[in-house]
Amino acid sequence: MTYKAINFKEKFSKFTEHWSPRVIAEMNDYQFKLAKVEGEFVWHDHPDTDEVFIVIEGELEIEFRDGIVNLESGEMFVIPKGVEHKPHAKTECKIMLVEPKGVVNTGEAGGELTAANDVWV
Amino acid sequence: MTYKAINFKEKFSKFTEHWSPRVIAEMNDYQFKLAKVEGEFVWHDHPDTDEVFIVIEGELEIEFRDGIVNLESGEMFVIPKGVEHKPHAKTECKIMLVEPKGVVNTGEAGGELTAANDVWV
Repeated sequence: MTYKAINFKEKFSKFTEHWSPRVIAEMNDYQFKLAKVEGEFVWHDHPDTDEVFIVIEGELEIEFRDGIVNLESGEMFVIPKGVEHKPHAKTECKIMLVEPKGVVNTGEAGGELTAANDVWV
Repeated sequence: MTYKAINFKEKFSKFTEHWSPRVIAEMNDYQFKLAKVEGEFVWHDHPDTDEVFIVIEGELEIEFRDGIVNLESGEMFVIPKGVEHKPHAKTECKIMLVEPKGVVNTGEAGGELTAANDVWV
């Protein structure tokens, strides 16, 4: 039989909401999630885990209390656990997140940008 | 301060060997590795872990005992743990692997394509 690859473009075409990660794959107890982001997110951290950002299309800035990282398509960054960060994107940016299953997008900061968890696309 | 993103193109420019994964990042006890592949790999499996293949550039086929998956740039696939697989690429293909630290590229199959582990680029 022919198995089907997971195609990022096809998955991105299936949702429009910003800051609302959709799970596309699981590896052991980790998940790969796609998200469309635009504008400012909230300051937050993930006290129990590192978090990977990979930019698929567009440009993303991630602010830290002591600096910043600029990411474009074909680049990634690992946010160490417990490090406060605030992503923002001037125009829509498409990203992939890799983190353990169950991680909430706003950490413990909460607020209106907190997305439902474990939503697959 | 300005932190530096991990740029896939830049990392790929730093090595030429085929089937020789280079670590570019760690997330908890997992590693992100880049590899250039061409030709046939060996049948093997990873009995203790799933393994993620992401194609960055080119085309990759992964054969299974019961089928095949074809991957191109912007696509990924999760090999479930214990499932025998044999990657091959007709022409050079650039991939990213995600798996727990310590996973050997040939699993327990061994042989001359077994690469040194935990080599960073």
